[in-house]
Amino acid sequence: MAPPLGDIAHLGHVELLTPDLDRSVWFFTTLLGLTENGRSGDSVHLRTWDDYEHHSLTLTAHSTSGLRRTALRTSSEEALLRRVKELESAGRAGRWVEDEPGIGPLYVTSDPDGHELALYWESEWYEAPPGLRPGLKNQPQAKPGQGVGVRRLDHVNFLAADVGSNAAFTRDLLGARPTEQIVLDSGKVAAQWLTFTNKSYDVVYTEDWTGSSGRLHHIAFATDTREDILRAADLCLDNDVFIETGPHKHAIQQTFFLYVYEPGGNRIELCNPLTRLVLAPDWPLITWTQAERARGQAWGLKTIESFHTHGTPPVD
Amino acid sequence: MAPPLGDIAHLGHVELLTPDLDRSVWFFTTLLGLTENGRSGDSVHLRTWDDYEHHSLTLTAHSTSGLRRTALRTSSEEALLRRVKELESAGRAGRWVEDEPGIGPLYVTSDPDGHELALYWESEWYEAPPGLRPGLKNQPQAKPGQGVGVRRLDHVNFLAADVGSNAAFTRDLLGARPTEQIVLDSGKVAAQWLTFTNKSYDVVYTEDWTGSSGRLHHIAFATDTREDILRAADLCLDNDVFIETGPHKHAIQQTFFLYVYEPGGNRIELCNPLTRLVLAPDWPLITWTQAERARGQAWGLKTIESFHTHGTPPVD
Amino acid sequence: MAPPLGDIAHLGHVELLTPDLDRSVWFFTTLLGLTENGRSGDSVHLRTWDDYEHHSLTLTAHSTSGLRRTALRTSSEEALLRRVKELESAGRAGRWVEDEPGIGPLYVTSDPDGHELALYWESEWYEAPPGLRPGLKNQPQAKPGQGVGVRRLDHVNFLAADVGSNAAFTRDLLGARPTEQIVLDSGKVAAQWLTFTNKSYDVVYTEDWTGSSGRLHHIAFATDTREDILRAADLCLDNDVFIETGPHKHAIQQTFFLYVYEPGGNRIELCNPLTRLVLAPDWPLITWTQAERARGQAWGLKTIESFHTHGTPPVD
Amino acid sequence: MAPPLGDIAHLGHVELLTPDLDRSVWFFTTLLGLTENGRSGDSVHLRTWDDYEHHSLTLTAHSTSGLRRTALRTSSEEALLRRVKELESAGRAGRWVEDEPGIGPLYVTSDPDGHELALYWESEWYEAPPGLRPGLKNQPQAKPGQGVGVRRLDHVNFLAADVGSNAAFTRDLLGARPTEQIVLDSGKVAAQWLTFTNKSYDVVYTEDWTGSSGRLHHIAFATDTREDILRAADLCLDNDVFIETGPHKHAIQQTFFLYVYEPGGNRIELCNPLTRLVLAPDWPLITWTQAERARGQAWGLKTIESFHTHGTPPVD
Repeated sequence: MAPPLGDIAHLGHVELLTPDLDRSVWFFTTLLGLTENGRSGDSVHLRTWDDYEHHSLTLTAHSTSGLRRTALRTSSEEALLRRVKELESAGRAGRWVEDEPGIGPLYVTSDPDGHELALYWESEWYEAPPGLRPGLKNQPQAKPGQGVGVRRLDHVNFLAADVGSNAAFTRDLLGARPTEQIVLDSGKVAAQWLTFTNKSYDVVYTEDWTGSSGRLHHIAFATDTREDILRAADLCLDNDVFIETGPHKHAIQQTFFLYVYEPGGNRIELCNPLTRLVLAPDWPLITWTQAERARGQAWGLKTIESFHTHGTPPVD
Repeated sequence: MAPPLGDIAHLGHVELLTPDLDRSVWFFTTLLGLTENGRSGDSVHLRTWDDYEHHSLTLTAHSTSGLRRTALRTSSEEALLRRVKELESAGRAGRWVEDEPGIGPLYVTSDPDGHELALYWESEWYEAPPGLRPGLKNQPQAKPGQGVGVRRLDHVNFLAADVGSNAAFTRDLLGARPTEQIVLDSGKVAAQWLTFTNKSYDVVYTEDWTGSSGRLHHIAFATDTREDILRAADLCLDNDVFIETGPHKHAIQQTFFLYVYEPGGNRIELCNPLTRLVLAPDWPLITWTQAERARGQAWGLKTIESFHTHGTPPVD
Repeated sequence: MAPPLGDIAHLGHVELLTPDLDRSVWFFTTLLGLTENGRSGDSVHLRTWDDYEHHSLTLTAHSTSGLRRTALRTSSEEALLRRVKELESAGRAGRWVEDEPGIGPLYVTSDPDGHELALYWESEWYEAPPGLRPGLKNQPQAKPGQGVGVRRLDHVNFLAADVGSNAAFTRDLLGARPTEQIVLDSGKVAAQWLTFTNKSYDVVYTEDWTGSSGRLHHIAFATDTREDILRAADLCLDNDVFIETGPHKHAIQQTFFLYVYEPGGNRIELCNPLTRLVLAPDWPLITWTQAERARGQAWGLKTIESFHTHGTPPVD
Repeated sequence: MAPPLGDIAHLGHVELLTPDLDRSVWFFTTLLGLTENGRSGDSVHLRTWDDYEHHSLTLTAHSTSGLRRTALRTSSEEALLRRVKELESAGRAGRWVEDEPGIGPLYVTSDPDGHELALYWESEWYEAPPGLRPGLKNQPQAKPGQGVGVRRLDHVNFLAADVGSNAAFTRDLLGARPTEQIVLDSGKVAAQWLTFTNKSYDVVYTEDWTGSSGRLHHIAFATDTREDILRAADLCLDNDVFIETGPHKHAIQQTFFLYVYEPGGNRIELCNPLTRLVLAPDWPLITWTQAERARGQAWGLKTIESFHTHGTPPVD
C-alpha cells in the first residue's frame, strides 16, 4: 500500500525575470552557490546542490524584474490529472505546455491574483556529471565550495490584491493547509501561510498595499544552518549586495531570515527554520492580530517600511 | 478539501523502562531539557518544548532497561480505524487500551519481532501553565533554559532478528516509505530506514547480531542545531554521562549524531538532520552495500563495536 | 626569561548595583548561567564557568542601578606597584582596600570621569567543589547546563562626559592600546575602544550625550558561539527580558551582539568576536567618521535611539 | 607609554614544500579559501582574508612534502635585535636574509631539532586591490565566497626527537609560555604547547616516535566557527581530500579540530578554539599523564595510530 500523499508533493521551481541577467546569474551562482544547469534562449536554469530535479530556478532576461512561473510537482500522474480536473471544474482552466528541460508536461494556469502557476508530474532525476559528483550516494550533487550553498528553494511569497480568495484557491483547489495568518482589526486577512508538506509553509499570500495584482514579494532559499545566513550577510556586505533587513527571527513561523535584493531587483530571502516542522494532522490555523503584528519580529526588530512597498511587477 | 495524508501522521511517543528512574528522569530533564508533565504509578511523563501533545516520552521503573511501547499518531479517526482493520486482516490483531494521560484510546499490537506498537488518534493539545508559557503563540511551551533543549522525539531504531519482515510490515500495514537500507553481500537486508512524513526517516529496523527479538537499538531526539549537539557532548563530559560515539555525521541519512547511554542503560541518540527532507514523491530506495558500509561514517569515523552488540532487552 | 606582558593583564571583575537583587541574581545565574560563589553583606559574587578567579561579577543591592567598581588584574606584583606609582605621580592617587573574597589588596582610584577603578595582583585560583568539577583539567569549572553559559566577562563600556581625556588616561597610565574610535566631523572623539590584551578591546569610552559623568553604558559577557547568542535571544523572549537591540554584527570591532536590560536596569551585552584578535604589534588606530557611523551596523541595522540615551547612573 | 609586549608578537608565516604544487595551491585556495598573493620562482604566496601581512603561507615545489621555514614576527625592531643577541649568546647564531615579498630582513636560525626559524620585524601592511576590498575598514580583505574561509594561520606543531630541549629553547630564548604538556610515566615530556600571545598556544613540540629530527606534525588554520569545520569536512568528502581524524574536540587545549592531508602530503589541521584565551598572567603549566592521555580526546574519540607516525620529512 503506497502512502497517500497530498496531490501536490512540493514546490518545484520558479522562473524569475531580471533586467540584468549576467549579474543575477552571478548572484545566484557565486553568492548563493547554485549551479548552472543549461540555458535555453534568454533563460538560464539553476539548481541547488540538493535538488533532485533538473532545476529549481530559471532566470530569464526581461525588461523588468518579477516572477513569471511558479511550478508545483504533484505526487503522482493521477494526482496531476485530479488537480487539472478540479481546476477546470472551478473555472480556472489552463493549458498544457512542455517547455522546460528535464520536466514533463506542465499544466499552466494562474491563481485569482494572476500569478502563473504550473503543475507537473514527470521529472527526470538529476545525474551529476564528473566534477559535481557527491561523496555520498544519498545526495544528488557535491556541495558547492563557492557561496552560501543553499539547500533548496523553500517558498514563494506572493503579493496579492486580495489575500483571502487566493489563499482559499490554494487551500481548496490545490490542497494546501493554512498554518498561520495575520488578520487585521477590520477582519481582513492580511497574509496567510500555507503548506503542502510537513514544512510549516511552502507558499504565502501577502496583501499588496498598492492594490496591484500579480506582484512578487519574495522567493526564499533554505540554508542548512543559521550560521550559513550569518556568513551570507558577510558575503553580501563584502560584495555590495543590498541587505534590506535581518538577519533576525520571524515571529510568524519562527524562521531565521535575511532579505536581500538580487542585482535584478527581486527580493530574495535566505531562510532557516531550524528543525521546525508541522507534523500534527490537526494543526490549528494560528492567527496573529494587528496588535501582535505591530510588536515587530521575534526578538523585537521592527518591520521595515520597504517590506510593505517593495515588490516586483506583475508579468505582462 | 482536506489534503490527504498518510494514515500514520507521525511518531507520537515511546515508553522506556529504566532500573534507575530518578537518574533517568535527571538525564532527560536536567541534561536534555525535557519537562516533566505528570506521573502515574511508576511512570513519569515527559515532553519536549515543541511537543503539542501531552508527552512524547514515558519513563517507567523496571528491573531492566528497554522499550515497552512505541505509539504512532494517525492522521484522522478514519485513518486509525482503517489501520486497525488492515492489521486485523493481516493477523496482527491487538487490543484497545486507554491508559495514557492526554491520549485517547490506543490500539496496541506488535511488529513481527515483538516490539509493542500502539496507534491512536485522539490527543489533547497541550496548554502551557504559567511559568512555561512561550513568548510566541506558535510554540506550545517556553524553551527550557536548562539542558540541551531537544525539540522532539525524532525516531526509534528497533533491533530485530529479521529486518526484512519487520520493514515490510511497517511499509505494507502502516504505510511507511523506505528511504535507505543496507543490503549485505548475501542479499540480506541488514537495516532499513522508513518514514511516515517528509522527514527522511521515523523508524529504523536494524539486524540484531545476537539473534534476539524485541530489543531496542536506540531512540533519538532532534536538536535544532549541530551546535546543540556539541554543547550536549560537553554537558555529558562534565556530568559523567557515557558517550558511546560521535559527534559525527552518518553516511546513511547524513544525520549529525551523538550516542550516549542514559543512566538506565538505554542508548539515546541526539540527532540533527540540518534542513534535509524527503519531498520527492518518487524517492528511490537507496541501497548501501557491505563494502560501502565498511568505509565508516561520512567523515571517516569507524563504526564502533558496541554499536553492533549493545541493545536493551525485550520487555517481558 | 619570562615574557614581558603589559602591566595590566586583563579585566578582572566588576561590581554592579541593582535595585532588585533577587531578580538580578536570577538573570545572571538562571539566564546567563553564572554560578553564585558566596555572599558578603548585600553583595552576591558570581563567576562564569571559565573564570579562574573567585568571581568576575559582584551584584550589590542599592537604590539604583549602576557600576560601582571595575577591577583590573596586573601581570605581576611589580606591575601593580609600577602602576600605583604612575597613578600617584599623575595626581590620581587612590587608596588600598582589601574588601573582596579571593582577591588580595586592591588599589582603588578612579578615571577622570569618576568611574571607580581598582588594580590588584593577588588572586586565589578557583578550586571547584564537588558537583561543579569539570571533566577536563584545563577548565576551572563544569559548564553549566542552565542558561546561556557565557564564558567570561568581556569588556566594560563607560559613558563619559569627555572621551578623549579618559581614553588618554587608560592609554597613558594603564598601558591600554586604542584599536578603534569614532571621530565626529567636529574633531571630537565620540568613542574609543582600547585593549590590554590580544582581544581587540577590553574597555570602551563612549560620549555621554547628557553630559553626565560616571555613568555606565554596558558591561559585556562573551559567549563561545553566535548560536549561543541566538539561543539567548530566545530565552530572553520566553522569560520577558527586555531586548534593546540585536542580534546583529557591529561594524566597529565586528562583534556579534545582543543588548538586553537585566532586571535591575543595567544594560548587558552578550558578545561574540568569533576568533578575531589583534595580534599585530603595530595595529593602526582605526577611525570611523560621522558619515560612516551613520550607516548603522555591519549588516545595516540602524543604531537605536535609546543606545545614545539609556545609561545607568553614576554611583554616589 | 607603549604597552610592553613579549618580544615575539605572533606566528607570522610558514613555508611548506609540496611535490604537487598545483594541487596544493588548489587545496589552499579553492578548499580553504586562501588568496594567492604573488609568486616567486617555484613558490606561491598565500594569505587568509584576515592577514594584515603580505602572506602567511608560502608553498614551494619540492621533491617531498615538509616544512621549510617558520617565521615569527617580533613586537618591535628592538625586540628583534634583543632576540638575535640572545640567540647568538646561546650559540644559536643565524644569518640575515631578505628573501620574501612584503617582509623585511629575516634572521634565520633553527631550533635544536633542526627546524628552520626566522625572526623579523618589518612587514608591509596589506592593501587590498579592487575586487578584494572589504566592506568594513577594520578588515584587510573581503571574505572569500570560495572555500572554508579560514581566518588565520594558527599554530605549528613540530615533531622533535627530544621535546624538552626544544620547548626549553622556545621558552628561554624566544619568550614563549608553556601552557599544557604531556608527561609520560617515565618522566619524559612527550609534547608541550607554548604561546607568545593570549591564544592558548602558538607552537607545539611533539615527540617523534621514529626518533627523526626536523619533521613536521602539522600546521593549523583557525576558522571562525565550529560550523566552518563541519562544512569543511563536507567539502573534503565531496572533493576526495583525505580526512585523517575528526571533527572532534581535543582534551588538551579543548580545540575543535579536523585533520586532513593536503594533496602534497602535509597534514593540515583546521581548528577552532571558540573564544578560549589564556589571560591569566600566572597560568600554571597543566600536565596530562600517560593514563589521562590514553582516554582519548575530549568526547572519547581514540587517537588514531597514524597520528603518531605520519609526519612530513625534514628539509635537506
